[in-house]
Amino acid sequence: MSYFENFLKTNQAYADLHGTEHLPQKPKTHVAIVTCMDSRLHVAQALGLALGDAHILRNAGGRVTDDIIRSLVISQQQLGTREIVVLHHTDCGAQSFTNEAFAAQLERDLGVSVHGKDFLPFSDVEESVREDVRKLRESPLIPDDIVISGAVYDVNTGRISEVTL
Amino acid sequence: MSYFENFLKTNQAYADLHGTEHLPQKPKTHVAIVTCMDSRLHVAQALGLALGDAHILRNAGGRVTDDIIRSLVISQQQLGTREIVVLHHTDCGAQSFTNEAFAAQLERDLGVSVHGKDFLPFSDVEESVREDVRKLRESPLIPDDIVISGAVYDVNTGRISEVTL
Repeated sequence: MSYFENFLKTNQAYADLHGTEHLPQKPKTHVAIVTCMDSRLHVAQALGLALGDAHILRNAGGRVTDDIIRSLVISQQQLGTREIVVLHHTDCGAQSFTNEAFAAQLERDLGVSVHGKDFLPFSDVEESVREDVRKLRESPLIPDDIVISGAVYDVNTGRISEVTL
Repeated sequence: MSYFENFLKTNQAYADLHGTEHLPQKPKTHVAIVTCMDSRLHVAQALGLALGDAHILRNAGGRVTDDIIRSLVISQQQLGTREIVVLHHTDCGAQSFTNEAFAAQLERDLGVSVHGKDFLPFSDVEESVREDVRKLRESPLIPDDIVISGAVYDVNTGRISEVTL
């Protein structure tokens, strides 16, 4: 049994109400948001985004990785975004483990050695935002005139607070 | 001027209506969705997800990369998901360039050489879904009993169609 079947059914109702729209590929606000995969954050609702407004990039932690840089370069150089928001959140799963303990767990449970791999855990959520903004500023692939902000989402209240960079 | 200021204002209204909830870290449906950053896809609405239901991972194209695998391992081994949906979409920005032309553009416009880097463009959207599902099945870090589905979202109609794997 897969849950995917339920998604397909729900999507039929969504598509019936959707109508046919031809929105452009380029996001209207020229913003790309880098945030976490967490299930308690619905980005479009929390930021008031309409369809077509902004790129949304999500991974474990909302961390700036090579893949996020790859995606942002496409977002900026192909699709015209000029601003980035790095949005981490409270009670993140990336705050609940260390690389060493996680590597031991994966070796035990999956029989795979990932010794030395960085799964990008963090402890202080404001500091992780600052660190990831620094990574963006240091990347030669992100132009200096791209506007970058940092923020934290509270999963209990839905409130977003700016992080002083 | 940053658009981020507008997001903060809109979020105040969202948070005022949000109330205080204490949803668990682990997603209720045990599903992780891997999809594209495209602004015309609002994943929660299109799939009928409530807050707390599912992990949502997004990059340029919805491609399975090392960073997506990192995130899925955390999703599964720390946060209990047991199913993956790979969801690509029509009219994707990743269909509009080649690595060679993009590398030349970046060298010209940013003065950065990325020769040989794969930005993961694709031409056939169903084939890109199949390729990424194969990558997941071949990864030793994704257990064999994880249920994996593939699908394509139509950005004009909002409709999701299953891809035969």
